[in-house]
Amino acid sequence: MKNTILVVGSVALDSVETIHGRTQRALGGSAVHFSMSASRFSPVKVVGVVGQDFPSPFRRLLQRRNICLKGLQILPGKTFHWKGRYDEDFKNATTIATELNVFQHFKPCLDKEHTKCGVLFLANIDPDLQQGVLEQMGRARLVACDTMNYWITLKRKSLEKLLSRVNMLFVNEEEARQLTGDHNLIKATRALTRMGPETIIVKRGDSGAMLFYREEVFSIPAHPVEKVVDPTGAGDTFAGGFMGYLAASPDWRDIKTLKRAMSYGTVMSSFSVEDFSVKAVSRLSKAEICRRYEKFVKTLAIK
Amino acid sequence: MKNTILVVGSVALDSVETIHGRTQRALGGSAVHFSMSASRFSPVKVVGVVGQDFPSPFRRLLQRRNICLKGLQILPGKTFHWKGRYDEDFKNATTIATELNVFQHFKPCLDKEHTKCGVLFLANIDPDLQQGVLEQMGRARLVACDTMNYWITLKRKSLEKLLSRVNMLFVNEEEARQLTGDHNLIKATRALTRMGPETIIVKRGDSGAMLFYREEVFSIPAHPVEKVVDPTGAGDTFAGGFMGYLAASPDWRDIKTLKRAMSYGTVMSSFSVEDFSVKAVSRLSKAEICRRYEKFVKTLAIK
Repeated sequence: MKNTILVVGSVALDSVETIHGRTQRALGGSAVHFSMSASRFSPVKVVGVVGQDFPSPFRRLLQRRNICLKGLQILPGKTFHWKGRYDEDFKNATTIATELNVFQHFKPCLDKEHTKCGVLFLANIDPDLQQGVLEQMGRARLVACDTMNYWITLKRKSLEKLLSRVNMLFVNEEEARQLTGDHNLIKATRALTRMGPETIIVKRGDSGAMLFYREEVFSIPAHPVEKVVDPTGAGDTFAGGFMGYLAASPDWRDIKTLKRAMSYGTVMSSFSVEDFSVKAVSRLSKAEICRRYEKFVKTLAIK
Repeated sequence: MKNTILVVGSVALDSVETIHGRTQRALGGSAVHFSMSASRFSPVKVVGVVGQDFPSPFRRLLQRRNICLKGLQILPGKTFHWKGRYDEDFKNATTIATELNVFQHFKPCLDKEHTKCGVLFLANIDPDLQQGVLEQMGRARLVACDTMNYWITLKRKSLEKLLSRVNMLFVNEEEARQLTGDHNLIKATRALTRMGPETIIVKRGDSGAMLFYREEVFSIPAHPVEKVVDPTGAGDTFAGGFMGYLAASPDWRDIKTLKRAMSYGTVMSSFSVEDFSVKAVSRLSKAEICRRYEKFVKTLAIK
């Protein structure tokens, strides 16, 4: 019953500084955070690009999670490197350096096995590339995408074309408003639905997340985290838990399934912020995921 | 079984401007918003002050809800008047005028009947006045208080003294951080607990609210509102629903009761923002409250 998920996005090296310490060229990127999380629920294949400097221990770490890296191109040059620093309250990240390196030449190229995947997640990359993947894909059972303010400003037309062809969209509040011009989140997401995706997931950081599906509006709080070490990749980890659970479920149009997917996304992202890079998620046991999920779901219930 | 709630706070006239319109000298103030909400669950008595200009229709509106106004002093002069404007996204209120008028001479004075109330809510006023009420009160079964950044800066010592004597504290995130110097909300509330109150309720606007009680942490999302007309008093309306429900409950140390109280607070505040002043809350039927509560609680459940 499990569908394989194809994720197309960035594979990066991140140098991050927070009040709790720093990392140098740690494993990062949207496709990495997504797949480390999603692979706990469903098989995942990655399409991305790295440079010749990409450390083989990182490759092995992903492969140990049964993440297929056949679609990870190696190009001459260096891997995408992001360097940033977070405020004390983790609200703002200051980018110190963005070295795109080989990532600026990324042309996602799918082989036959990739096109058979039932679920496609288009992580935040140039919407023209996302569109190109869709065209190579043939028919996936379920297509979800992410984006960011940069593309909304620079490539709105391409993005609108893409949105008309996806089932699900992950955005944050600001992006929802920027895309639609509406300040009220319910109105904004309704407008987004008219642009194509039937399901909208609004990621709200430590305020949780909201799901809009047809007439249903579902809000979920964040799982409380006592010591946030590094929020990098929390959104992709959320999307990974969400999509991973859906890909293993018989019906992603069922609101109960969608609510459980939101809870798994929340739980996975709560783990991810507890350490740098993918450290916390990579060392998780299945039992730990289940335990936090059960506790979280129990806490939410009122009656 | 129902306890009567005594609320001490401001009774005001509010002139508010939002993208959806404006009001001139409408009924407002923390004690008003609180009691309009709490009185749907438990009997309420108000201690406050107004000027001779306070319109008698406002007085009757409160009395029709069985809110006892025997403790509402009338002083020569004008009623406290606040004039403000909200941004398009309702995140910030700009104060255009604060005319304290008779409110600057407010000396809460309790009669014998007031001191018999089982529950006391000290709305956001000068902590020295809040302390004075506590001293007149004798023993209430349950004491809760609210405060604001202004008093944290100007009267920290008085506030700390007060906190050592209350059971519950309502704050927003910024106030929790300002009071404790801790950015992480869990750590901040743990520090607040050490200052006195056993239960901390953190109000987070459209991100919902959090409750901290002993080892329990409970987050609740906001009820989605499609058209926010006026957020003035939403926090006091939340506290009113919360305290009103608790006052009618046999055990306010029971986490299930506290969770239900959080839900009623959320539901009441979601109504309050749908119209100016206390309009939406005042016209509510019991059935409408129950309907939204049941639907909300059902939406939250994952399983």
